[in-house]
Amino acid sequence: MPFSSKLIEQSVNAFASLPGIGRKTALRLTLHLLKQDGSVTEQFANALSAMKAGVKSCRDCFNYSDQELCEICADARRDRSLICVVESARDLMAIEETGQFRGLYHILGGIISPIEGVGPADLNIMPLVERCGRGEVKEVIMAISPTIEGETTIYYISRQLQNSGVALSAIARGVSFGGDLEYADELTLGRSIVARTPYAVK
Amino acid sequence: MPFSSKLIEQSVNAFASLPGIGRKTALRLTLHLLKQDGSVTEQFANALSAMKAGVKSCRDCFNYSDQELCEICADARRDRSLICVVESARDLMAIEETGQFRGLYHILGGIISPIEGVGPADLNIMPLVERCGRGEVKEVIMAISPTIEGETTIYYISRQLQNSGVALSAIARGVSFGGDLEYADELTLGRSIVARTPYAVK
Repeated sequence: MPFSSKLIEQSVNAFASLPGIGRKTALRLTLHLLKQDGSVTEQFANALSAMKAGVKSCRDCFNYSDQELCEICADARRDRSLICVVESARDLMAIEETGQFRGLYHILGGIISPIEGVGPADLNIMPLVERCGRGEVKEVIMAISPTIEGETTIYYISRQLQNSGVALSAIARGVSFGGDLEYADELTLGRSIVARTPYAVK
Repeated sequence: MPFSSKLIEQSVNAFASLPGIGRKTALRLTLHLLKQDGSVTEQFANALSAMKAGVKSCRDCFNYSDQELCEICADARRDRSLICVVESARDLMAIEETGQFRGLYHILGGIISPIEGVGPADLNIMPLVERCGRGEVKEVIMAISPTIEGETTIYYISRQLQNSGVALSAIARGVSFGGDLEYADELTLGRSIVARTPYAVK
């Protein structure tokens, strides 16, 4: 693409380096910014700089945080006896959005994947074991994607925690609410029959 | 969406303010940047700041430029007797990409649109007339979208230049190369018959 400005080219390159953004979209975004008042671009740049300089990892749960402890860990109203283990900050946000969980989290930073060279030592598993050893935690909920790597990770963690006295659980799996049985995959449907729950007549 | 970090929220807001980027995508881009080395985000922020501070409008053609004259206007190899009038820098880039035009450009910065309150005085039409009065220009090619507003703009410019001694032309219109006649719209197909070109037997 021919650019009349090196500065524009740099901005296009920056946008195009993001996942899912091609060069045409990158150009559209850049030209959009150029059309706006200069303060819009400045705020954008400042937001990125501030994020780069300021975002830390929460000391306890490894969530992104502006402080040493993230807002969730610092919130006195959360149930400190319950820890939900997730792969990433994005999964944490998805669970927070449901509004159904009032405990704390623990972000692994990935899952065990021999193919991608990710072993237990690359994840925040030891800090989880240490957290569970402090006496406050009663239950650890594994909210990890039901893939082979996910199951391996859950198994590894369960072995690490088996003598800790902490109860272990995994999120329920089955056919989605509103999901059509016809379109559910065989594994999910099969497991949902094996793991059927009693039906309470109200 | 619940954020554990105000800094992340600011970055998500900045991305989500861009056209075609929703909040989920904005979050995905932000988390991508957080996963990268810090220098990636810094370079991104610097590229935006530098663009905001440095990009000017070319003195002659109003293209985006890092210098007083854009690279095209400053290029001695370009044909200075030919000016291609376009609506925006994006149209200029599209034409440059074809590699078929070796003259100069003139960016109007929009088209005449009474509905959107854009009149001739809001566009770079007077500077075009002045440019054509300097004696160097022999032909002005209107490369403006064939819409009602576009036709109005072309007509207005043609009236302004009618006594300048400069030849006027418009880009050819017709059925696209590779386009299927069946799917061409009626207006294009109709005009392409009226404006048929002699077929040269080679």
